[in-house]
Amino acid sequence: MSDNNERGLQSNKEDLSEWYSEILIKAGFIDFSPVGGFIVLLPPAMFIWDKVRDVMNKEMEGMQVKNAYFPLLIPESLLKKESEHFTGFTPEVAWVTQAGEQKLEERLAIRPTSETIMYTMYAKWVHGTSDLPLKLNQWNSVVRWETSSTRPFLRTKEFLWQEAHTAHATKQEALQQAVDAIALYEKVLRELLAIPVIKGVKSDKEKFKGAVFTYTLEAMMPDGKAIQMATSHMLGQNFSVPFEIEYVDEKGNKSYVWQTSWGISWRIIGAMVMMHGDDKGLVIPPRVAPTQIVIVPVVYRGKPDPTPEAEMLAQELSKVFRVGLDTRQDKTPGYKYNEWELKGVPLRIEIGPRDIEKGTVVFARRDTGQKEAVSRANVVQKAQELLDDIQNNLYAVAKKRLDEMTVRVDTLESLKDVVNSRKGFAVAGWCGERQCEDQIYEQTGATIRCVEEQNEGSCVICGKPARYKMYVSKAY
Amino acid sequence: MSDNNERGLQSNKEDLSEWYSEILIKAGFIDFSPVGGFIVLLPPAMFIWDKVRDVMNKEMEGMQVKNAYFPLLIPESLLKKESEHFTGFTPEVAWVTQAGEQKLEERLAIRPTSETIMYTMYAKWVHGTSDLPLKLNQWNSVVRWETSSTRPFLRTKEFLWQEAHTAHATKQEALQQAVDAIALYEKVLRELLAIPVIKGVKSDKEKFKGAVFTYTLEAMMPDGKAIQMATSHMLGQNFSVPFEIEYVDEKGNKSYVWQTSWGISWRIIGAMVMMHGDDKGLVIPPRVAPTQIVIVPVVYRGKPDPTPEAEMLAQELSKVFRVGLDTRQDKTPGYKYNEWELKGVPLRIEIGPRDIEKGTVVFARRDTGQKEAVSRANVVQKAQELLDDIQNNLYAVAKKRLDEMTVRVDTLESLKDVVNSRKGFAVAGWCGERQCEDQIYEQTGATIRCVEEQNEGSCVICGKPARYKMYVSKAY
Repeated sequence: MSDNNERGLQSNKEDLSEWYSEILIKAGFIDFSPVGGFIVLLPPAMFIWDKVRDVMNKEMEGMQVKNAYFPLLIPESLLKKESEHFTGFTPEVAWVTQAGEQKLEERLAIRPTSETIMYTMYAKWVHGTSDLPLKLNQWNSVVRWETSSTRPFLRTKEFLWQEAHTAHATKQEALQQAVDAIALYEKVLRELLAIPVIKGVKSDKEKFKGAVFTYTLEAMMPDGKAIQMATSHMLGQNFSVPFEIEYVDEKGNKSYVWQTSWGISWRIIGAMVMMHGDDKGLVIPPRVAPTQIVIVPVVYRGKPDPTPEAEMLAQELSKVFRVGLDTRQDKTPGYKYNEWELKGVPLRIEIGPRDIEKGTVVFARRDTGQKEAVSRANVVQKAQELLDDIQNNLYAVAKKRLDEMTVRVDTLESLKDVVNSRKGFAVAGWCGERQCEDQIYEQTGATIRCVEEQNEGSCVICGKPARYKMYVSKAY
Repeated sequence: MSDNNERGLQSNKEDLSEWYSEILIKAGFIDFSPVGGFIVLLPPAMFIWDKVRDVMNKEMEGMQVKNAYFPLLIPESLLKKESEHFTGFTPEVAWVTQAGEQKLEERLAIRPTSETIMYTMYAKWVHGTSDLPLKLNQWNSVVRWETSSTRPFLRTKEFLWQEAHTAHATKQEALQQAVDAIALYEKVLRELLAIPVIKGVKSDKEKFKGAVFTYTLEAMMPDGKAIQMATSHMLGQNFSVPFEIEYVDEKGNKSYVWQTSWGISWRIIGAMVMMHGDDKGLVIPPRVAPTQIVIVPVVYRGKPDPTPEAEMLAQELSKVFRVGLDTRQDKTPGYKYNEWELKGVPLRIEIGPRDIEKGTVVFARRDTGQKEAVSRANVVQKAQELLDDIQNNLYAVAKKRLDEMTVRVDTLESLKDVVNSRKGFAVAGWCGERQCEDQIYEQTGATIRCVEEQNEGSCVICGKPARYKMYVSKAY
């Protein structure tokens, strides 16, 4: 297997940061663009994103959310209309100031998010109750000029995402939509990417600028840092007032609409990589794997060639699964095994001369490394069972780790210990005051990832009665 | 039907330009953005684009073309690397010069197309023959700052498109790829959008800047103006030399790769609208229609209500088709008929009390306006047949019109007559000289849309032996 050194992983997953950078390149998920902070998304990762897109589109159809596309460029005057929103985004906006040889009269922002341009149109479209609810989604890319150091998927100056924006006649309905959206994300993460999360609400400090409040899903990486996976914002009437999105009800009364916006970005791919990978490389959950099964015929000199049988098997399995067949003659089986393990293919099927004799094949599962002989006649059914099992096992292992890394603490000292030494979420009471939130960051470098309303116990900082249970950790 | 005036079309399709602007808004296909020259793509049109995307993705999979995503922003220095390409695009580039408060050291172009950034990466990825062919596609939006007047779909400052870029070891293979790509587009236009086209090659003047030559598909609109529907470029080594995309072959020889690029944009939606619509509104080909069938129960006071039957029918049909059910009680059947005709739904099913009695429903087809009674038991099968028939008929009618509007001419006078009075393609011999091409434009305002190599006859301008058969017309 010495011929595999060039492609094999040099780094160990214990050094997650280095491992992450190496695996993304070696597995062909991304490459770096000539402009710093931008990445190229390569086919295997694009496949995963498109899979998420397909599933989300179906789910959103059930929610009566329809896809649309709004312009990339937003005039500065529009972006300024909701002042908190503008203040929040202005340090990271990329500005178009020239077109051809001509200097533009007004600067145009590359969308950092589309509230302002969409709601300008919503004001034009919404008149009466029959225009509501209005629920539109876009799949696009946005630009936010990150000044801190960037990292593929997790912090890039441009990223792919989906942003849905809804307008409702009542507050109640908008609240329900915000809840439904975050539940949808939780489902997608669990069922497709096998990622368990903590669901909660952002603190005022950490919420989306312009929102009344923000629901969030937070995943915990093996190195003890959280990743914000998706957010759903209750916007209330914060945008409908400045943008004048009003409707006249049956009684002739004019009211402002109630709104939500919610999004999920390609950072979930980065989280998936960190969550399931190991020292051998990626482990991709079967439901989103570009290749679910790879078949490797094992050729021995002087023995019958299993390749024709492997080809037949590949054809048969292709009717149900996404299948690769590796018949390269200049590579050893060991090289191939390593390569497909590095790329995270969930199930490898080996087939050699003895298997042909015995009417069997060998299944090697990527998650546990276990091998078993399977009767040739049962391959399709067994493959389905094994892929389902891998999908479930990945989630179960991740969930167990999340539980282990979520630790209740009662003192600032033990909070520090959890976020800095043991690594993970420290769960504690919080009074809800910004002062105590700032204290946590100053003392530990960690932030409140999310909170749940809960009146038990006392604030771990000031000792006053707790209004929230908070999840504190460092974060990507 | 007086209550329909507000939504009905005011303009007549004979004034195609006015009709086009009106129908796009009234049918809810687009709206205008606050920034001039940009449009908002609304759900019915987005649906059509996504349908094209799905079908193209499947076809491209068969061609081993994979999806990827490259950054939106391209450094000026990269854009300049192929000089003809840069000169061609520079008047229409939108430049990002600032990010947050910081002035950028180098201007960044919003991609007008992605050759330069993709090929920078290709140079990094291609080393040997095992890296070839390299075939990547992206679905994205590009910005070209049109200075002439804009028109939805046909000429907008930002548009959605697909751009595929391939690199090959041999010229032969690249040529074949360029041919296959244009054939794919022809198929998609024919089978999905029911649009017949003329296939040919662009003149040097009209080709893509940076290409060796450009294949094009040209459709003819009812007002006698052509629309370029899709292009496929043989790039030869024009980019691989400046971008240094080289591979080492089995014998150890270094060669530059041979390349193609090809794209199709949302302008095909505009062409579809113009091609099939009529004075009542849109006519959407069934295969891409967001709603293929709309069911309208016709309620009479004092008679049994057909609504429950309509609901059952809708459920049944929904298993096979995209179905709408219009049970609004504050609208008359006439209002509803007009509205769904305006929106281009291919098949309307009316069901009234007498139909219930007789065990029938009424089919009204959008393309011809014909109505027929259909036995309730045969509805699914008949609907499928009728939708197929509408799809075929739309193509057949459009093809007949294209043939009638394509006229062979032998003199400049008759060429002028065809392009200006009779309207359509004038087909004539051309020597191939730029001088004669310029003459045509000066004398008629029309351009050479495409050519085929052909040595018969003589040039309609200079009388020298013809090298090409050319298709001349005005164009959008």
